[in-house]
Amino acid sequence: MFHALADANRRLMLDRLAGGPASVSELAKPLSISLPAVVQHLRVLEGSGLVRSRKTGRVRTCQIEPQALGTAERWISERRTAWEQRLDRLGEFLAELREQSKNRRPR
Amino acid sequence: MFHALADANRRLMLDRLAGGPASVSELAKPLSISLPAVVQHLRVLEGSGLVRSRKTGRVRTCQIEPQALGTAERWISERRTAWEQRLDRLGEFLAELREQSKNRRPR
Repeated sequence: MFHALADANRRLMLDRLAGGPASVSELAKPLSISLPAVVQHLRVLEGSGLVRSRKTGRVRTCQIEPQALGTAERWISERRTAWEQRLDRLGEFLAELREQSKNRRPR
Repeated sequence: MFHALADANRRLMLDRLAGGPASVSELAKPLSISLPAVVQHLRVLEGSGLVRSRKTGRVRTCQIEPQALGTAERWISERRTAWEQRLDRLGEFLAELREQSKNRRPR
């Protein structure tokens, strides 16, 4: 999933899809790469589960899979939160130490 | 940043660092790769801004940069939210259509 997100063109395709479903040629329009390259990127996005596509007649319509985005988001968020909670605990511990040393000081 | 996250060993290193700072050899311990490979991965993580390290004497201590994780998280979250809001609006529109057709129906 992160590999799929690691390419600027694929991120632009996701940007477009966040606004609603699009055909492959609509996805290709703002990009300065060939249509086969877009299809290749689409394959990576579908392989990662971030995008789903369906062919109706000759048009392939693509859409975002919000659950997959949610999974990637959660992975990052859990690490960030663990680190921040650790900093909070460290802060509380330092405040406690400061309090103790204040109480020990002769008045 | 997503390229840095796209490797399983680098994600394991971030897992470890989410629990607190660690030396390079501490990071290497649970991984089945060589120390130079770990250093290489660390370079990618530092290049992406996700990790910061500092050398004191002969020990290099690494720590997470929560702001960079927050940036990656926000990028994903914005796309997911845009898509979900779109679905919500679509749902409201459909409900409205249903209401209108109900009102038009002869009683």
